[in-house]
Amino acid sequence: MLGKPRRLAVLAEGSFAPLDAKTAIGVLRYRPAEVAAVIDSTRAGRTAAACVGVGGTTPVVAGLDEAAALGADALLIGIAPQGGQLPAAWRDTVCGALERGWDVLSGLHVFLGDDPELARRAEAGGARLIDARRPPATRRVAAGRAARVEALVALTVGTDCNVGKMTAALEIVDALRAQGVRAAFVATGQTGIFIADHGVAVDAVPADFVAGEVEALVLEAAREAEVVVVEGQGALHHAGYSGVTLALIHGAAPRAMVLCHEAGRERVRITGEPGAGIPIPSLPEVREAYETAARWTGAGQVVAVALNTRALDEPRARAACEAAGRATGLPAADPVRFGAGSLAQALLEARVARGPGSGGNRAPAT
Amino acid sequence: MLGKPRRLAVLAEGSFAPLDAKTAIGVLRYRPAEVAAVIDSTRAGRTAAACVGVGGTTPVVAGLDEAAALGADALLIGIAPQGGQLPAAWRDTVCGALERGWDVLSGLHVFLGDDPELARRAEAGGARLIDARRPPATRRVAAGRAARVEALVALTVGTDCNVGKMTAALEIVDALRAQGVRAAFVATGQTGIFIADHGVAVDAVPADFVAGEVEALVLEAAREAEVVVVEGQGALHHAGYSGVTLALIHGAAPRAMVLCHEAGRERVRITGEPGAGIPIPSLPEVREAYETAARWTGAGQVVAVALNTRALDEPRARAACEAAGRATGLPAADPVRFGAGSLAQALLEARVARGPGSGGNRAPAT
Repeated sequence: MLGKPRRLAVLAEGSFAPLDAKTAIGVLRYRPAEVAAVIDSTRAGRTAAACVGVGGTTPVVAGLDEAAALGADALLIGIAPQGGQLPAAWRDTVCGALERGWDVLSGLHVFLGDDPELARRAEAGGARLIDARRPPATRRVAAGRAARVEALVALTVGTDCNVGKMTAALEIVDALRAQGVRAAFVATGQTGIFIADHGVAVDAVPADFVAGEVEALVLEAAREAEVVVVEGQGALHHAGYSGVTLALIHGAAPRAMVLCHEAGRERVRITGEPGAGIPIPSLPEVREAYETAARWTGAGQVVAVALNTRALDEPRARAACEAAGRATGLPAADPVRFGAGSLAQALLEARVARGPGSGGNRAPAT
Repeated sequence: MLGKPRRLAVLAEGSFAPLDAKTAIGVLRYRPAEVAAVIDSTRAGRTAAACVGVGGTTPVVAGLDEAAALGADALLIGIAPQGGQLPAAWRDTVCGALERGWDVLSGLHVFLGDDPELARRAEAGGARLIDARRPPATRRVAAGRAARVEALVALTVGTDCNVGKMTAALEIVDALRAQGVRAAFVATGQTGIFIADHGVAVDAVPADFVAGEVEALVLEAAREAEVVVVEGQGALHHAGYSGVTLALIHGAAPRAMVLCHEAGRERVRITGEPGAGIPIPSLPEVREAYETAARWTGAGQVVAVALNTRALDEPRARAACEAAGRATGLPAADPVRFGAGSLAQALLEARVARGPGSGGNRAPAT
């Protein structure tokens, strides 16, 4: 991962639970062979699957010593702290890992490499501090270039944050590859970067250059791929993050969008402000919002709905998918629970619908 | 300016022309008493007014020696370099200023204070490097709080970049103050910060926190003001910067928006990519786009059109304003050429239309 094969100890102290440990869960789901252990002293002795439903028998342990005994040789920060600073207890764990000569991989907003004490300890231990969220020094401004690539570009978009946009993108790419399609996943967040070994955490990029960085990632991926699936971020209806979402739409210039929603979620969630988010509009209204936003610089259609049904039992989950399909007239599925085949198929049909000889991902707005 | 009274030498070498020296022109228009001289050796001997139409008899000089002779005691970088790096010739000028003990004020994306050589020279000269674009270390996420302030919040929005959003906001604030209204200007770009002595250059803020920073600025301004006018950035139809624009809309939660347009501009301009921008839609279509975007998290109306008619003679300018007014059914004026009275009046009417006892800037979307 990020430079060389690793056996990771994933730090999720006190938080190794389904909604709290997004990075840990993403890495366990998509790169399980690289995780030696999860560190959460409050859940030590259980398995990953017992705590978060993925990761199989990967053990949860109390600390670095136990993780080292299981063969760990690097530490990955698997959770995000409240307030953006590194909690004191985590600092001790990070220092302990560096003393062992382990690289420390972090997707935090605060950069470990900028911390003088940690930098000194890393140097002393011959270890690296790898900040996946550190933005590139390039200063690219988007100019609609992604609209002209031959590959079909797709973007996952959502009714809110943390509804499954990264997961839907990864599952769709897997389903396309299973059909022999050359599909590429473009990571735009720290967890996606750990999984894909490449990408840019766009939420940490200076705002002027978000669309430009995404555009560059799409152009790069489209050189090899027939279908490029970009991991979405935020939501147009989230007051805090909508700007990042629009920058992704205008930077990636997707011909197809997959609308992601968590079944049963009724309001946009704003961390630390219960009730501050607006009620989530109906799926057709949200679809209309995304297509309207895409039209401002080009065109792009929502072609499928990815439903996250983790809160429902199976009959209710199937009913929720059927209801979403009826409401939108689009293929709708939970890609984790029921497979991403129908969503992948919707992208392939969007690719064909472009027609031969169209000479680009989509028509310009003119 | 920014900490203490200053006599500025404004660096605009080779670029002291109407479209190239946005920061220099903004400072000359709104803080002329603080400018001792403009440095542009290619135009030395002329006056500011002869070069850019503002700044009166402020002299244009060849270099630091001449500026010092006119009483300058600080250097302000008045132009933006191509490519984001500090050109070698400018570096010499910056070093020369620091050797004189002058503070250097910069709005560049590259931070002068992070340049080891410049930092060393500043320390040696007892001078400060003031990077107006450096983002605050705070990590604020917007949560719709600005929608609940008592003051009327207004935002200037545009059909493109560089059409006059900062100027319209400043002129409207002046017109409101002339009527005895407690009006505040919220600066969101480097030039606005130099003029207002306060603010955040949102385009340099990590993307997740742009809306949150704007929200915080609005809450702060609304404590004293009856009307808060926020300087807009970018445009919803500009592929590179639309994300910043949407973050401002959802962070500031304006009840009123003033739509800014340059008469005669037909396409969105993307620097270095002629023809890459889309054709600018009609003013009613652009108005609809902004009101749609505002509705995603709340509500907000376009209440007036600010037209920049710098390319037109006076009869054509008047005709353009009338045509914009007819097309939109809104007050339309060039605030620099014909005064901002009608635009200010439109805001006061929006404030009254909110009605007594409404208990906030606008109704939530529920």
